[in-house]
Amino acid sequence: MNALKQFGVKPGSKFNIRKFDPGDTAEFKDKDAAAATVEANSRKLAEMQVRLYAENQRAVLIVLQGMDTSGKDGTIRHVMSGMDPIGVSVVAFKAPSHEELDHDFLWRIHNVCPRKGEVAVFNRSHYEDVLIAKVRKLAPPEVIEARYRQINDFERHLTECGTTIIKFFLCISKDEQRQRLEARLRDPLKNWKFEMGDLDERKLWDDYQLAYETAVTRCSTEYAPWNVIPADKKWFRNLAVSQCLVETLQAMAPKIPKPTRDWSKVKVV
Amino acid sequence: MNALKQFGVKPGSKFNIRKFDPGDTAEFKDKDAAAATVEANSRKLAEMQVRLYAENQRAVLIVLQGMDTSGKDGTIRHVMSGMDPIGVSVVAFKAPSHEELDHDFLWRIHNVCPRKGEVAVFNRSHYEDVLIAKVRKLAPPEVIEARYRQINDFERHLTECGTTIIKFFLCISKDEQRQRLEARLRDPLKNWKFEMGDLDERKLWDDYQLAYETAVTRCSTEYAPWNVIPADKKWFRNLAVSQCLVETLQAMAPKIPKPTRDWSKVKVV
Repeated sequence: MNALKQFGVKPGSKFNIRKFDPGDTAEFKDKDAAAATVEANSRKLAEMQVRLYAENQRAVLIVLQGMDTSGKDGTIRHVMSGMDPIGVSVVAFKAPSHEELDHDFLWRIHNVCPRKGEVAVFNRSHYEDVLIAKVRKLAPPEVIEARYRQINDFERHLTECGTTIIKFFLCISKDEQRQRLEARLRDPLKNWKFEMGDLDERKLWDDYQLAYETAVTRCSTEYAPWNVIPADKKWFRNLAVSQCLVETLQAMAPKIPKPTRDWSKVKVV
Repeated sequence: MNALKQFGVKPGSKFNIRKFDPGDTAEFKDKDAAAATVEANSRKLAEMQVRLYAENQRAVLIVLQGMDTSGKDGTIRHVMSGMDPIGVSVVAFKAPSHEELDHDFLWRIHNVCPRKGEVAVFNRSHYEDVLIAKVRKLAPPEVIEARYRQINDFERHLTECGTTIIKFFLCISKDEQRQRLEARLRDPLKNWKFEMGDLDERKLWDDYQLAYETAVTRCSTEYAPWNVIPADKKWFRNLAVSQCLVETLQAMAPKIPKPTRDWSKVKVV
């Protein structure tokens, strides 16, 4: 499985969301068939994150986007939990505060970008400013329009300064969302996650699909391509995301620094 | 006096520092001849900053750069002090901390950019990353090289999102610096400002001149042009900077918001 190639959107190409199958599971028949790979990926991720932290030269930024119930939280819980929290931060972006709205939209994003050696996971991100902001008309069309380029410039800058960016759009079908929202309504353990607003957003499903299509198409760059993950099957979503992360970190090949001197001569007394 | 036209470096043109006269005082003979204009500018600035604050729609970012003793502190004290500190912040950038060095060089800059309605004055700035960083070789040449474009992209983004950027290079002659450093050494009231490192930097005078020339040339853009201020005469420096600020704010023409309803009908009981 070459996940980055399979799920990555080629820079310059158009991402067509209607032709995308959220139920795809590639060559894996079911959860059991994927279990060994997921398990192995989890170990590899944990090991490479320690190296990244020890190397202390580069950062990793993971961006998670997707409709309500698409599994952003679940992905963090299942895929990222093997990594050492010392070097990993998770940032959830909610509706911006007054202070945040009084700055450019990338201000609050830049502020929490990962430092060298660290991994940051963005649960939603600056892409909300071309998603909900576009669908809900929170800014004039020409302001939204400029943001795609502003985002690309920003991500290029981060990349050039030593941050590897991995972006995931967790793509579910409208029917799958219906089932998951139903489950939230009925299950007392999931109940707390449900908000009436979720149904209002669902009414705008088609507008959001279009907004995602545009964002993925225009912001899939050589330095920060989008990966679109078929997310109707949670087990496959976890497999695909973990595989993309492993491939990315393997390509980075972070190294534990060599000792600055020959420690074999040093005695601890 | 059209200061922005006179001191602004035309985007796309080369700024030639050897042809620049730091002792220039334009049509003003001496301090007394300039006094009335400086005084008037001070009143105008104070008034327009209140309007900017009340309007609460746009921000102003003033960048001050210059060699040691070029008068960055003095400019802030004399030119900016008429403005209401509630809406004005002054940020002095020193050598970056470990945490700052672990991020891209614009991280600490972006974090303190002004919010809507506010004025921020940067005493030194992100330009140090193509000045001292270049002269002292604090980063590889290709990293420095990329920064000019990164700075331009960043400043374009800020401008597009509602911040007006005004950049001043306070340009003094090498002889004037000698006199001012002497004064710092001898005057017990200025003594605290002197550091032995100042003399080391002075030895690299020519390298710094070249680095300024490149930074001003490559980062003088339509959206954020550089202004090079003849700064050997403090009174003229203050006049020129205040005049540029007044012209900029006048062009912005911030407006006190209209009442949201007819207050004449409202009684305070």
